[in-house]
Amino acid sequence: MAIVNSENDLMEKIVTLCKRRGIIFQSSEIYGGYNGFWDYGPYGVALKKAVEQLWWNEMVETRENVVGLDSTIICHPKTWKASGHIDRFGDIMCDCKTCKTRHRVDQMEDPTTCSNCGSKDLTPPREFNLMMKTYVGPVFDEDHIAYLRAETCQPIFTDFHLVRIATRKQLPFGIAQIGKSFRNEITPRNFTFRSREFTQMEMEFFCSDEQSMDWFYFWREQRMKYYTEKLGFREDELQYHDHDKLAHYAKAAVDIEFKFPFGFGELEGIHHRGTWDLSRHQEYSQQNMEYLDQQTNQKYMPTCVETSVGLDRTILALLTHAYDEDKAPTKKEGMEDDVRIVLHFVPRIAPVQVAVMPLSKKLNEAAEKLQKDICRFYRTELDTTGNIGKRYRRQDEIGTPFCLTCDFETESDNSVTVRDRDTMAKERVNISQLRQYLDDKIYGC
Amino acid sequence: MAIVNSENDLMEKIVTLCKRRGIIFQSSEIYGGYNGFWDYGPYGVALKKAVEQLWWNEMVETRENVVGLDSTIICHPKTWKASGHIDRFGDIMCDCKTCKTRHRVDQMEDPTTCSNCGSKDLTPPREFNLMMKTYVGPVFDEDHIAYLRAETCQPIFTDFHLVRIATRKQLPFGIAQIGKSFRNEITPRNFTFRSREFTQMEMEFFCSDEQSMDWFYFWREQRMKYYTEKLGFREDELQYHDHDKLAHYAKAAVDIEFKFPFGFGELEGIHHRGTWDLSRHQEYSQQNMEYLDQQTNQKYMPTCVETSVGLDRTILALLTHAYDEDKAPTKKEGMEDDVRIVLHFVPRIAPVQVAVMPLSKKLNEAAEKLQKDICRFYRTELDTTGNIGKRYRRQDEIGTPFCLTCDFETESDNSVTVRDRDTMAKERVNISQLRQYLDDKIYGC
Repeated sequence: MAIVNSENDLMEKIVTLCKRRGIIFQSSEIYGGYNGFWDYGPYGVALKKAVEQLWWNEMVETRENVVGLDSTIICHPKTWKASGHIDRFGDIMCDCKTCKTRHRVDQMEDPTTCSNCGSKDLTPPREFNLMMKTYVGPVFDEDHIAYLRAETCQPIFTDFHLVRIATRKQLPFGIAQIGKSFRNEITPRNFTFRSREFTQMEMEFFCSDEQSMDWFYFWREQRMKYYTEKLGFREDELQYHDHDKLAHYAKAAVDIEFKFPFGFGELEGIHHRGTWDLSRHQEYSQQNMEYLDQQTNQKYMPTCVETSVGLDRTILALLTHAYDEDKAPTKKEGMEDDVRIVLHFVPRIAPVQVAVMPLSKKLNEAAEKLQKDICRFYRTELDTTGNIGKRYRRQDEIGTPFCLTCDFETESDNSVTVRDRDTMAKERVNISQLRQYLDDKIYGC
Repeated sequence: MAIVNSENDLMEKIVTLCKRRGIIFQSSEIYGGYNGFWDYGPYGVALKKAVEQLWWNEMVETRENVVGLDSTIICHPKTWKASGHIDRFGDIMCDCKTCKTRHRVDQMEDPTTCSNCGSKDLTPPREFNLMMKTYVGPVFDEDHIAYLRAETCQPIFTDFHLVRIATRKQLPFGIAQIGKSFRNEITPRNFTFRSREFTQMEMEFFCSDEQSMDWFYFWREQRMKYYTEKLGFREDELQYHDHDKLAHYAKAAVDIEFKFPFGFGELEGIHHRGTWDLSRHQEYSQQNMEYLDQQTNQKYMPTCVETSVGLDRTILALLTHAYDEDKAPTKKEGMEDDVRIVLHFVPRIAPVQVAVMPLSKKLNEAAEKLQKDICRFYRTELDTTGNIGKRYRRQDEIGTPFCLTCDFETESDNSVTVRDRDTMAKERVNISQLRQYLDDKIYGC
């Protein structure tokens, strides 16, 4: 029970810090908020963009066998008929006829009794589709219904041949994209873990059926390495979770789970999807979706292995991993050490990588010049108000790994004091060496 | 007339090239396409991300007085009541009762006669709202209607104080965001110029009313400089267009227009919005939206100057600017010179900045190693098939500024041939100097 309390505490602390420091907060707060929608503030958007770019670089820019795509959120509605989302994508719900509450049947302790009022007068269970609907075109009728995509991967399948031909790729190769998806969740919860609008980073890897399990294991390993090596997660924060039940077309499915404050939860799925999606789109579009292997002259439907990440969940995992409270020594004798809140982000994704601080107002100009010089290479912030100790705390709270202080010696010796967020150690670095010093610390190069 | 033909030609050539080379193509093509929706293929998404990142760096990362935001596409519907979009955001339309065609009244030559069938039996003109509607929550009724945002700027206004307090900013300062917006256009047209789903890059700059016209002129100049200095547009391709009519709350409004194949069209608007938006959100939310100036101790409603860019239009402008056909000399005597298609993108935003080519299959390994070394710093592609001349043409068509060829001397002298897209000149560069050479050519540093 103590553990649960402290875990609830941690979530509350993260949510509070995120709002106070402008990392993440409720959408439309002045209108009382909007359930299941979250906005990223200045530090949040910097963090989100950095993680997005890291994934893109890792999955697309540094791989010759993966290319990118950016498809629209609204696409032809037949896409979702083919994918099966229109017919079956939702929760089984029932309504209490007495108090009008709607329940997810699988979450009811007693599915014959309303947990709100105790009534047994319930509607029969029926499916509630999670796709968000809209209308495209001048008339609002059945013929003009469209859907906000429920996953980013379907347009990857429908665009497969266009992309393949334009890039002259041969199998095996993958197509990746980052973008928003929408699900009308009945009970959005756990901060940004389950929300109604969220960003996915998905990659579909097309190969022959014979090679598909090799590729499944390849991506399973690659993706776990990314979390430990690139995002800095500890091994005890992560686990594989093999699916007990597989879709009829799949040979394997595994999730990578992270230890959130509320327990282990899915960060990413690595799923063997067989030939399901391409076959369905072939059936519904009447376009041949097969691939001709030019070496063997064989035609076949490619098999697909998917890696699917929730970006908002990744951000929540990073916050969970990074959040810490520790003792920062005060200089005043007899005073108790401060408790500081600190976010231990790996430097490459920190919202602010380098804060520049003038020790006195007289040094503002020198600090501004320094910041101007380095802001092309790193995410920087000029922090000029309050005493230096206060500024360090402020930067600790948003996870800034390095603070550079310009002092009265800076002009004469062309050097600054670099303060390390994690060790709180300070060292003097010559400005001419700064780029090399920071590249090394931030990117290891 | 000849000019019109050649301009139509240019648009057609751009659309054809974009599809063939996987830059931009119709959404859901296998389902017959979806009017007003466009997907970005591998080279298109690279270009789009590069322009997005350039704007973000220019407007947020290198400015101390602008911070970022990333709000949801769906926000509280009261937002759009307050902004006026629900009551008035659309075209006046009428239907022909005879042939059922719907017309925009302002586009009808004779507003009493159907241009399709000649009938005079028309419905009275009425407004057709462009906001796309959906439902959020378990019940699909009036109380659960929500809207896909029609512009990215409104959440900037509703989040203004949250962002200001979290970042301790004082006026004047701006808030910027990049994201998707949706408008149910009756007649999407001119390729990606007017589409139903598009990306905006907007910045709202908050200041006192007294300073607002100075800031208006500041941003008017800054934004024009961005197009010539950062994106490489020629002065004759751009023009200011002052609005003839101003909204009642505005002191000034100007568009920056680009010379598209179909004529000059809006790329970006720089608009004085007065205190309109914040005042309206104050009225509808009953939250005080005023700002307290701590130096003068005066409380007032901030005035806003907006810069609003269409990203998809920027991409179309870049393609229009970059597209060229010229003569590339063949080496065969007596043969006519080839016509080559080339995209003259400035190197910093080119989808592929550096292509790496092994002269022979035996050199594949060396080329792969070289590409692996530089792909962390530049957008690269390994191009191994066809003769070198063919590969140059291919790279010209996607606008790759530099092609590096590994040949049989590369191993012994540690150097490669660098071929320049625009001059087609070649020079030999030592691999140890390559990073400096490319940084200089691509980023001018």
